[in-house]
Amino acid sequence: MRPFLSHPFDDDKLKEECGVFGVIGVCDAANFVALGMHALQHRGQEAGGIVAYDPEHGFNSARRFGYVRDNFTDPATMSTLPGALAIGHVRYSTAGSKGATAIRDVQPFFGEFAMGGAAIAHNGNLTNAAALRRELIERGSIFQSSSDSECIIHLMARSIQKNIPERMKDALRRVEGAFSVVAMTRTKLIGVRDPLGVRPLVIGRIGEGWALSSETCGLDIIGAEFIREVEPGEMVVIDEKGIESFHPFDRRAARFCIFEHVYFSRPDSILGGRSVYETRRQIGVELAKEAPVDADLVCPVPDSGTPAAIGFSQQSGIPYAMGIIRNQYMGRTFIEPTEQIRNMGVRLKLNVNRALIKGKRVILVDDSVVRGTTSRKIKDMILDAGAAEVHFRIASPPTAWPCFYGVDTPERAKLLAANMSEDEMRDWIGVDSLRFISLDGLYRAVGEAAGRDPKAPRYCDACFSGDYPVAPSDKIDQGFEMKAAQ
Amino acid sequence: MRPFLSHPFDDDKLKEECGVFGVIGVCDAANFVALGMHALQHRGQEAGGIVAYDPEHGFNSARRFGYVRDNFTDPATMSTLPGALAIGHVRYSTAGSKGATAIRDVQPFFGEFAMGGAAIAHNGNLTNAAALRRELIERGSIFQSSSDSECIIHLMARSIQKNIPERMKDALRRVEGAFSVVAMTRTKLIGVRDPLGVRPLVIGRIGEGWALSSETCGLDIIGAEFIREVEPGEMVVIDEKGIESFHPFDRRAARFCIFEHVYFSRPDSILGGRSVYETRRQIGVELAKEAPVDADLVCPVPDSGTPAAIGFSQQSGIPYAMGIIRNQYMGRTFIEPTEQIRNMGVRLKLNVNRALIKGKRVILVDDSVVRGTTSRKIKDMILDAGAAEVHFRIASPPTAWPCFYGVDTPERAKLLAANMSEDEMRDWIGVDSLRFISLDGLYRAVGEAAGRDPKAPRYCDACFSGDYPVAPSDKIDQGFEMKAAQ
Amino acid sequence: MRPFLSHPFDDDKLKEECGVFGVIGVCDAANFVALGMHALQHRGQEAGGIVAYDPEHGFNSARRFGYVRDNFTDPATMSTLPGALAIGHVRYSTAGSKGATAIRDVQPFFGEFAMGGAAIAHNGNLTNAAALRRELIERGSIFQSSSDSECIIHLMARSIQKNIPERMKDALRRVEGAFSVVAMTRTKLIGVRDPLGVRPLVIGRIGEGWALSSETCGLDIIGAEFIREVEPGEMVVIDEKGIESFHPFDRRAARFCIFEHVYFSRPDSILGGRSVYETRRQIGVELAKEAPVDADLVCPVPDSGTPAAIGFSQQSGIPYAMGIIRNQYMGRTFIEPTEQIRNMGVRLKLNVNRALIKGKRVILVDDSVVRGTTSRKIKDMILDAGAAEVHFRIASPPTAWPCFYGVDTPERAKLLAANMSEDEMRDWIGVDSLRFISLDGLYRAVGEAAGRDPKAPRYCDACFSGDYPVAPSDKIDQGFEMKAAQ
Amino acid sequence: MRPFLSHPFDDDKLKEECGVFGVIGVCDAANFVALGMHALQHRGQEAGGIVAYDPEHGFNSARRFGYVRDNFTDPATMSTLPGALAIGHVRYSTAGSKGATAIRDVQPFFGEFAMGGAAIAHNGNLTNAAALRRELIERGSIFQSSSDSECIIHLMARSIQKNIPERMKDALRRVEGAFSVVAMTRTKLIGVRDPLGVRPLVIGRIGEGWALSSETCGLDIIGAEFIREVEPGEMVVIDEKGIESFHPFDRRAARFCIFEHVYFSRPDSILGGRSVYETRRQIGVELAKEAPVDADLVCPVPDSGTPAAIGFSQQSGIPYAMGIIRNQYMGRTFIEPTEQIRNMGVRLKLNVNRALIKGKRVILVDDSVVRGTTSRKIKDMILDAGAAEVHFRIASPPTAWPCFYGVDTPERAKLLAANMSEDEMRDWIGVDSLRFISLDGLYRAVGEAAGRDPKAPRYCDACFSGDYPVAPSDKIDQGFEMKAAQ
Repeated sequence: MRPFLSHPFDDDKLKEECGVFGVIGVCDAANFVALGMHALQHRGQEAGGIVAYDPEHGFNSARRFGYVRDNFTDPATMSTLPGALAIGHVRYSTAGSKGATAIRDVQPFFGEFAMGGAAIAHNGNLTNAAALRRELIERGSIFQSSSDSECIIHLMARSIQKNIPERMKDALRRVEGAFSVVAMTRTKLIGVRDPLGVRPLVIGRIGEGWALSSETCGLDIIGAEFIREVEPGEMVVIDEKGIESFHPFDRRAARFCIFEHVYFSRPDSILGGRSVYETRRQIGVELAKEAPVDADLVCPVPDSGTPAAIGFSQQSGIPYAMGIIRNQYMGRTFIEPTEQIRNMGVRLKLNVNRALIKGKRVILVDDSVVRGTTSRKIKDMILDAGAAEVHFRIASPPTAWPCFYGVDTPERAKLLAANMSEDEMRDWIGVDSLRFISLDGLYRAVGEAAGRDPKAPRYCDACFSGDYPVAPSDKIDQGFEMKAAQ
Repeated sequence: MRPFLSHPFDDDKLKEECGVFGVIGVCDAANFVALGMHALQHRGQEAGGIVAYDPEHGFNSARRFGYVRDNFTDPATMSTLPGALAIGHVRYSTAGSKGATAIRDVQPFFGEFAMGGAAIAHNGNLTNAAALRRELIERGSIFQSSSDSECIIHLMARSIQKNIPERMKDALRRVEGAFSVVAMTRTKLIGVRDPLGVRPLVIGRIGEGWALSSETCGLDIIGAEFIREVEPGEMVVIDEKGIESFHPFDRRAARFCIFEHVYFSRPDSILGGRSVYETRRQIGVELAKEAPVDADLVCPVPDSGTPAAIGFSQQSGIPYAMGIIRNQYMGRTFIEPTEQIRNMGVRLKLNVNRALIKGKRVILVDDSVVRGTTSRKIKDMILDAGAAEVHFRIASPPTAWPCFYGVDTPERAKLLAANMSEDEMRDWIGVDSLRFISLDGLYRAVGEAAGRDPKAPRYCDACFSGDYPVAPSDKIDQGFEMKAAQ
Repeated sequence: MRPFLSHPFDDDKLKEECGVFGVIGVCDAANFVALGMHALQHRGQEAGGIVAYDPEHGFNSARRFGYVRDNFTDPATMSTLPGALAIGHVRYSTAGSKGATAIRDVQPFFGEFAMGGAAIAHNGNLTNAAALRRELIERGSIFQSSSDSECIIHLMARSIQKNIPERMKDALRRVEGAFSVVAMTRTKLIGVRDPLGVRPLVIGRIGEGWALSSETCGLDIIGAEFIREVEPGEMVVIDEKGIESFHPFDRRAARFCIFEHVYFSRPDSILGGRSVYETRRQIGVELAKEAPVDADLVCPVPDSGTPAAIGFSQQSGIPYAMGIIRNQYMGRTFIEPTEQIRNMGVRLKLNVNRALIKGKRVILVDDSVVRGTTSRKIKDMILDAGAAEVHFRIASPPTAWPCFYGVDTPERAKLLAANMSEDEMRDWIGVDSLRFISLDGLYRAVGEAAGRDPKAPRYCDACFSGDYPVAPSDKIDQGFEMKAAQ
Repeated sequence: MRPFLSHPFDDDKLKEECGVFGVIGVCDAANFVALGMHALQHRGQEAGGIVAYDPEHGFNSARRFGYVRDNFTDPATMSTLPGALAIGHVRYSTAGSKGATAIRDVQPFFGEFAMGGAAIAHNGNLTNAAALRRELIERGSIFQSSSDSECIIHLMARSIQKNIPERMKDALRRVEGAFSVVAMTRTKLIGVRDPLGVRPLVIGRIGEGWALSSETCGLDIIGAEFIREVEPGEMVVIDEKGIESFHPFDRRAARFCIFEHVYFSRPDSILGGRSVYETRRQIGVELAKEAPVDADLVCPVPDSGTPAAIGFSQQSGIPYAMGIIRNQYMGRTFIEPTEQIRNMGVRLKLNVNRALIKGKRVILVDDSVVRGTTSRKIKDMILDAGAAEVHFRIASPPTAWPCFYGVDTPERAKLLAANMSEDEMRDWIGVDSLRFISLDGLYRAVGEAAGRDPKAPRYCDACFSGDYPVAPSDKIDQGFEMKAAQ
């Protein structure tokens, strides 16, 4: 049974689809992997899996729906995962899975090759997976999951290279899109980022061993020292002798996902040498410069709007306040809620601090607007509590294009900003003012003083600009229309 | 099975032991009670229970370990609780329960009397329960739980009054201590507060019906309008004809629990006409006046230190920042964690924003210090991240005495402030400075401009002062020594 | 959750409602109790409970729905039940329980008295329980279950005697009906049978300790030696000094339940000094004498008809054969079966040995006919397999009256024999012949060579004769009409 | 979690490893498959799986540990398996599976091919699977289970045939050993038996649809008419147009497993035109002729010795009696029993009818002796009950060789008959006499009046004779020594 359903009120956020973690060279590595996955839980809450290897017991795995803390902490489970080498994966999306077989879609994927087994965990999305899958099936591969990531392991099985790292290079040269991969053989821990480096992946040192993690917060929790990022297009192969670095792909200019800074990554992580928290606070500062307004209070929409709200308050001088309180026992969601409870909507999760808000002019700072449905409900709650004015300030530009690189986005027709101008959105949400940070302002906040260079943008910002650095070929086959060249 | 254990890292807080909620006059009342209990979950996370009445199906009940959201939301359970009248209880303490019978200790308690059944839910603690229990057993009552609250229902069963509200008055006149009770018969919803009004209880209006809740945030979630508090010493009896008010006890000066303002209640609740959030922010303001210090950042210990940290920042002009990030997937706890995970300690729950903290002089604002063990661990994390100085500011006076009125406190010997002076505590925790708000400062923050009147204090502040408004007679029988009269 | 529903196809049998077991003086007594309950599982499959006492840990209990083997065998549960003294109960009936509270109805019941705790388990039925319950509630007792057996413990709590055995005598002198009780204090194991001795109860010796069991098969499984039966009207109090025997009731002529011989007890048990298996085989012998018929095969309706079929075959010389095969994986029942599966009816449980039956004249031997619905279905299956003739022989007289002494019987209107003559039943079931053993024949099979003495029958045979040895006063209050005196 | 462990006391039997079932052309085919699997549960109790196909919902599957009745009966599960075409599998062996991944080993296996999906379920064992698996892995196939049966589906994926039945022929021509396969595509139900026809498989007609089942008892439960057996070496392909028959293998003389008659199949099934029950009864008749003994009672070891005991009694004239009673609530096993319970041994399952046995000379009829450990325990129980003499009569010849065709057998060193003569076994078990039926006697009982023809035996009897009709090549690779040619 799948105990956790997706949150009925969280569907108004973009969702990172995965986090990956691996450890080599420490006793009971799976315990460390579980901790790392717990720290990366914000990148995927639906399910998780761990594969561990031990010379005596071979490869063992456990896959579960639900939170890491509920599944990968009890000794009964963890004792089935012995060994000094383990990798793990947390996952959000249920895309493609149906009914009772869905646990098969939970990574890491494992394959037994002639030279031994290997397991891989993938964060990102392959843009040519559907075509690859068709080709592999025609040649006799049997897929066990509906996950496109399984292509990688079949491509590896088909490779005629003599060792697993070489087979992985072969396989990854065939795929397109965004991928940060953590993999393992019986003796090696492997990390790879796609040539653009769309998704993050970092290297840490723990005692005599090593760790790979989607974000630095995963290193912090196990007490590992942050060494460096895996570079875009780099493959690192780690064993007892240390780290070997390869660059198996044609070199291209990196395009890291700018939305990792805005929302996906944890505020205590460090991306590209920058504190995520500080970047978000700086977005608030830029936003206060770009779109000032006279008001009594600056309130975050908890929790993701908090750092930008702090920055907005500091820049504007308007007092920061907790105008909306989050119920910390919300966890992921109510299990199969009754109809009546489902209709309570956002009130289950958020409550307005009525005594504070009454009669005040309030600036609400949120990280993004996707469909806009939650923004409307929040505005209703604030007005119902007696606010005099409501001003929305959004810490990202209008989200007008879907992401095909490992983020769960509604189709374009459902994105509010794909269908309305900023003024129309303001009227539809029903607030006194609504302003988004500009794309240039966002680039300034991440340290590009000159704003975005349209000829060679430093980040992937396709969800805002429609400028896709890798053509989403499967989607184009299915009818998706790219932005017309301008 | 009991899926949630108490949190190994939360034992450094005082814990409110219960929340109560009741609804009459709305269709499927149990659904509303579940929502109210969800909003009151911070008052008790271990277990919850609901009793509902419907003329066709009689009294039905469900009791479960774990969160409301996990137990009282699915239609299969809720459909067993039909009716327009229901009460509920969330509970923290496991005090007294042993092994497999503990579900019996989960309230509400139910009794079948000659004139029909009644159920009651109790927030607080009876200071003469042990003596009453002995007496009742001698007279032939059979207790089904280890909970002292069960005394009330046996006293009611023994009463010779002809109706249940009168029997409840009889029973409550026999008990001593702190109690906010929500009860129900087949036709009435009843609310009572003890003469001192130690624990909160409020009345709300929902459509044609009524609600009782420990806090106003429980009214907000169901869309009920906050009408007024149940007064100290008042009993309200609500049925289809409306509210009747009684005052069955000798009238005394009220002594509301001041710690409800500091920590127990939710910041969006209103207590005694005051916003809890605003009171806490004001504590920060007072603290900045009483104990200023030169520093670079004011950081809350999340989440309970946040409002006071905001106030401290606003008063001092030192920037507010999120120096410590809370893992929002911590939920209640890891289930039977492996030894290795248990040893990770506070890192499972909190992480330092390393890039922000490095080289900074940091003021940490926390709500209270109980044993001090967590404070030490947090200090270690902050220094490990490279902070230049660490200053603790505590939003309550030193907690030096146990509470006997419904709060789970360690015995006096384990309270840091019962054994050390402020300077000794500073050295033991190992920080550059440590200051608590004064008791007068706390009274000022809750609106008593003149501070605390030692002859007639407006609040129960026994945990700080040792001045117990009701003698804890059971505890004295067991050897507890009161503070010597001064 | 209640994993086992009552069997949709077993509702055509009378059901024993309970089995009781107790052990004193052996290490980990609860383990022995679990084994004894497993051996008594045929007396109650819905739920079971164990209470154990240990000086260090006090009284502990566990109550579960489902089979003993699924609930009381794992070390996690059993380790919560330490001590050298324990009692247990298996239970069939759901009478009175509603919805989610039913676990409260699972015995043993426990009460804390002024002189210490006691637990009791009851097999039988109290015929004046409803009246007692009303009286106790009026005097302030709070019932925790819907089980009438709880009266006993409240009567004990109200007694003014100074020790528990004396209180139990007081209590049991107030109740009417059939009861075999196993009870325990902190130091004693107690067994009692009602004055008529309607239900069985035996004493066994195990090492230095003692056991009480509903049947001798419970002694066999733990390797205990069968010592003797508890006598009708006797109370035995067992502690480290040995057995003390009391006779607290007015002495009456015993009336043991004759249906225990026919169906309820296990064939390997010994009742009143007679092998149950041998008695049943002898019933078959008598039946072959009373109701011979020319045929090719004698087949039991499995499993309860087997011994009588063997006897019938031996007396008649007609070969014994397994014409109907029972699916041994049926266990208790399908959980919430789909409609389609429910409609498969008896085929889920029984299958005809088609190759054997085809063209044969078959005698089917069954233990009893209650509603007759299953008999019809079995006849259909046998004819469908091509039998030439079908003759039913029933190892008990027509069941025409309900039992009020601890057996679950349909109301009289649903008993086939209460509404039809033997010939009418034959036609309604649709077989070539149908014969029941006579009441005199049954008495002969249990060793009364002269048959039944109508003035002083040796057994309770009310279900056949309508001659109730104790007036069912609660039922008479509810309108039940006794057989007119003749 | 795996709720059912293998039975600690059943390890003294050979175990059939699987049963297969399929239905086409009936509404909600999966419900019928579940019923068929329930009837075949004796062929595999550890786990079961169903795959169903419906044009709208595609292929769906469910795999569960435990009994059919506990997993495949509730509407919640069954509604996920819509369609008029479904196959199922019950399984005993855990051979090869390790730890938490074992659910992957539960059949049917599914593969998506270029021309659509197919699922297969396999009863039997492939004797060259290890070699095939190595070869397939070298060519890039990724195995998802540790089950050798998965080879078939990979061989199908590699075939260059244009449709699935042709691919299956390709695949099955590559495998060696024993196999009865039930498979399905989107439109066809397919059944195959290996050239020797070692395992059974039958065809039934249900309404307008068809069924395939390991045994006829699976047809009976769904009300299907038994049409005929699938012939050795035959492949049947069933769709809406009817049955097409193919013979893809070189024709060989059939060698049906004789142990199916002795023990594996249900007594109400028909094998090779013979009633299994009648064959077993006839074994008892032959045994009474071959090995008569003077005694008072003939008792079966329940339940499998029953038909032979009836035959022995009828031939010898010694009365048949139930001297050993089986606890019908034993089900499969105790879950993780406590040490103390494990040590109770066979008493949990069987009890001696002490009053019957005392002082008697008893003939015990059992189906087989494997390790002999249970036989010793039963002898102990019988003697402990006071039997005067104990004579064992075994309804099969000495089991001296392991089976490699789909039966779980201990290694040869653990087979009692591989290490001892009949007299040595008698002394080791400790009985007054011990006799096995001769191999010729067994052949006579299955209808070969002349006994076994050593040049061309009609059955596979390798477990008795060491004469393996297919060389167990994987096992020979691993060092197994065949019987020397004589």
